[in-house]
Amino acid sequence: MPKQNTICSNPVKKYIEQAKSFHGYAAPGIIIGGFMVDLAYQHLPEGVLLDAISETQVCLPDALQLLTHCTVGNGWLKVIDLGRFALTLYDPNNGNGIRVYVNPAKLEKWPEIKNWFFKLVPKKEQDTQRLMKQIQEAGSDICDYEKVKVKLNKVTKKHHSNLGICSRCKESYPVADGDVCLGCQGKAPYLNK
Amino acid sequence: MPKQNTICSNPVKKYIEQAKSFHGYAAPGIIIGGFMVDLAYQHLPEGVLLDAISETQVCLPDALQLLTHCTVGNGWLKVIDLGRFALTLYDPNNGNGIRVYVNPAKLEKWPEIKNWFFKLVPKKEQDTQRLMKQIQEAGSDICDYEKVKVKLNKVTKKHHSNLGICSRCKESYPVADGDVCLGCQGKAPYLNK
Repeated sequence: MPKQNTICSNPVKKYIEQAKSFHGYAAPGIIIGGFMVDLAYQHLPEGVLLDAISETQVCLPDALQLLTHCTVGNGWLKVIDLGRFALTLYDPNNGNGIRVYVNPAKLEKWPEIKNWFFKLVPKKEQDTQRLMKQIQEAGSDICDYEKVKVKLNKVTKKHHSNLGICSRCKESYPVADGDVCLGCQGKAPYLNK
Repeated sequence: MPKQNTICSNPVKKYIEQAKSFHGYAAPGIIIGGFMVDLAYQHLPEGVLLDAISETQVCLPDALQLLTHCTVGNGWLKVIDLGRFALTLYDPNNGNGIRVYVNPAKLEKWPEIKNWFFKLVPKKEQDTQRLMKQIQEAGSDICDYEKVKVKLNKVTKKHHSNLGICSRCKESYPVADGDVCLGCQGKAPYLNK
């Protein structure tokens, strides 16, 4: 298989630069994520505004945020942390989509990627240069894709329709959460409030 | 109070363009979020690499992702959905941080922002131009800030240290999740797998 030179119609190098700027560094997972998004698009109809799911919190949300119009803050990207290195792009009107995942069986051909993916080698002993070379040579060769039908009720945007003022902190909150906001119910991650 | 012309040292206009490009449109919440991040930075020490918390899934994660090095995919931004329009930037070494929130009492001066914030007017009847004007005039005038101490054990990066192969789907997953992966335990958002 010839080496894949583009990700979503742009040079791989350009994507790596974008990834560095947004993600802070060219993490292996975000580069693989780029090839995964590219593979999904190859099997999706053009001209449809798609929504996205990342099945992990790690790296893939950033690949999706860089390469699609879906972000966490606009609600078109949902992170459903199943601990699987997989992502889905789908039509929000009917749930039809393409799911792309790393197939562990396919990593046998790429020992450095396998070492990184399964954390078989301590980070310090990792040969980063060889790893990045293998990632770019492999492209989406380490992935598989499948058609999926997304359960739309599981991924629809949450609308906090009825907001009120929390009687304790005096901030706004969805009244459906209870008498006081979730923060004042003890769910805030702070020691002093 | 004079109108605030910059967000994190860049012209407000530039931030609005970035927000459009990343978030898809210049949503009121992402513009307010920009002023909130700016206010937090004013009260934080310089030169410290900070982590971030968004207390809502809506808009604020994108403001943080645009203006800080914290993203969902690199793990330095945590979305803890308490339904409050608030964000925190903090030192991950000691948990000391600044939390910024919209103070509903301060919205009385800005009727269009109040209408939007509490959804008092249907979106179609909203005067978007007046709303955006008020948002830019108000800047961080509608916000308050406070010192917080973040519970670091609540926000530390999750590391999936031991990965195995799920006996059902044959994909990688954190073995701590059980005999099969969370997806195969019925948590996947798909109808056909």
